[in-house]
Amino acid sequence: MKEKTQIALVQMRCGPEPDTNLAHALELIGVAAKNGAQIVCLPELFRSQYFCQSENHDNFSLAESIPGPSTEALTKLAREKSIVIVASLFEKRAAGVYHNTAVVIDADGNILGKYRKMHIPDDPSYYEKFYFTPGDLGFQSWKTTRGNLGVCVCWDQWYPEAARLTALRGAEIIFYPTAIGWHASEKKEFGKAQHSAWETIQRSHAIANGCYIAVANRIGHEAPAGGDGIEFWGQSFVCGPDGEIIAKGSVDREEIVMAEIDWSVINRHRTHWPFLRDRRVDAYAGIQQRLID
Amino acid sequence: MKEKTQIALVQMRCGPEPDTNLAHALELIGVAAKNGAQIVCLPELFRSQYFCQSENHDNFSLAESIPGPSTEALTKLAREKSIVIVASLFEKRAAGVYHNTAVVIDADGNILGKYRKMHIPDDPSYYEKFYFTPGDLGFQSWKTTRGNLGVCVCWDQWYPEAARLTALRGAEIIFYPTAIGWHASEKKEFGKAQHSAWETIQRSHAIANGCYIAVANRIGHEAPAGGDGIEFWGQSFVCGPDGEIIAKGSVDREEIVMAEIDWSVINRHRTHWPFLRDRRVDAYAGIQQRLID
Repeated sequence: MKEKTQIALVQMRCGPEPDTNLAHALELIGVAAKNGAQIVCLPELFRSQYFCQSENHDNFSLAESIPGPSTEALTKLAREKSIVIVASLFEKRAAGVYHNTAVVIDADGNILGKYRKMHIPDDPSYYEKFYFTPGDLGFQSWKTTRGNLGVCVCWDQWYPEAARLTALRGAEIIFYPTAIGWHASEKKEFGKAQHSAWETIQRSHAIANGCYIAVANRIGHEAPAGGDGIEFWGQSFVCGPDGEIIAKGSVDREEIVMAEIDWSVINRHRTHWPFLRDRRVDAYAGIQQRLID
Repeated sequence: MKEKTQIALVQMRCGPEPDTNLAHALELIGVAAKNGAQIVCLPELFRSQYFCQSENHDNFSLAESIPGPSTEALTKLAREKSIVIVASLFEKRAAGVYHNTAVVIDADGNILGKYRKMHIPDDPSYYEKFYFTPGDLGFQSWKTTRGNLGVCVCWDQWYPEAARLTALRGAEIIFYPTAIGWHASEKKEFGKAQHSAWETIQRSHAIANGCYIAVANRIGHEAPAGGDGIEFWGQSFVCGPDGEIIAKGSVDREEIVMAEIDWSVINRHRTHWPFLRDRRVDAYAGIQQRLID
């Protein structure tokens, strides 16, 4: 494994046509690879608009098997470009069992594994519990040829447990394919604090675990089910183990957010901030309780 | 319990004389109470300079029993002013068994309980493992007459597990008595990032747990053991459940940092950001491992 790796987050707009989105994603991955990217991460559920804004049984037809048509195209591209790809897909596992799944494809085109989103939200316009069975594969890390990485997905980002378990399994960078934005009715009053909380807690995962964090979000306003829709806030970012942001996308433009990952920083940082050394693993059992009341 | 509570963080300078520091702390608590504070938190080990900059057996003479002289003065003041006091003390539990302990005193002057620092650092000029036996009382919360609070101490602030467990036990605000600052040799290159990481991870505890966080740090340059010493960076702060800072002290002045805690915000916030609802308590067992390798 090399000492430094170039990564790219594809910050993209997603339209109503899945095939068009997939083709666009493949094109942007190609650009990222041309720019030197060795690991590329797509945003959450990039193949479609964010259909979870309504509970509509027709939307299950957007799901596909893994492996399936999307991974066929993505694994081929990964092999051609010799890059690692992290891709978030709507997985049909069986009739009535669907997951929000991220696939990790190694630079040789093989699917190394998949992560099924563990924490499933259910909020107005984010009706994910209707669509996604909670993940049953736990938190994971993969030794890719371009680095040791883990993947969590969107709502997972609010859970320090998810980042911790992923890091304890060896991930030195955690990717977060994401689809998050503002409701028009809330943006003026709460928008700034909402975005700040989102960025802050993910920076904190880097700090707590002495690893890199890389978050790929989409952009654009989507209201596929009518209503006010969601204004996805972009601002994909990468931060280092001290939580400092080293690359950040805009709020409303498609772009490829590139960053250089220096793996040696992790060892140096954890040596100077030896948080993992002092964890009180003897005293954390209560974490497995809902409340301690 | 009232809907709103005024809290105060005493950001103070600590001199070489313990009795003078205690008298000064009592005086500042009196001022805070006069200003309307109902809960007052002192910085970590406020009765002395930060003696952990060297390993010196003589420093164990700074420790005291709990209850002891300091709690006698503090409980008396709490009763007189009808305020809750969170005070960090160097506890002598038995010959050879010392703790870095925070005492929670209710507004009637009774000691509600104590928290013994669970995560003990050991870094250049922070030789705490020499002095403090790791805490054996776990993470706790107390129902005081002025609010449900928990206490963690300094190094604990880098551990999401500590904040989570304290919140799961019912704390709606977590106080962090703290003694942290810059080494002169590092400040220029790393100082800004160090402070940012410290503030960020504590804000993230508020976000993850939907509670208030209140951090009392000391100020001043101390080199009790010779050497370059530590420049304590003050900047005591309070943040709300969305992680936004609502009160913050300066970097170098003694002051009483006051904030109004609106307990209803917690319920409202957790209703809109229902992170606790979706925790995957079935999948967190690995948190109790050092690494999952």
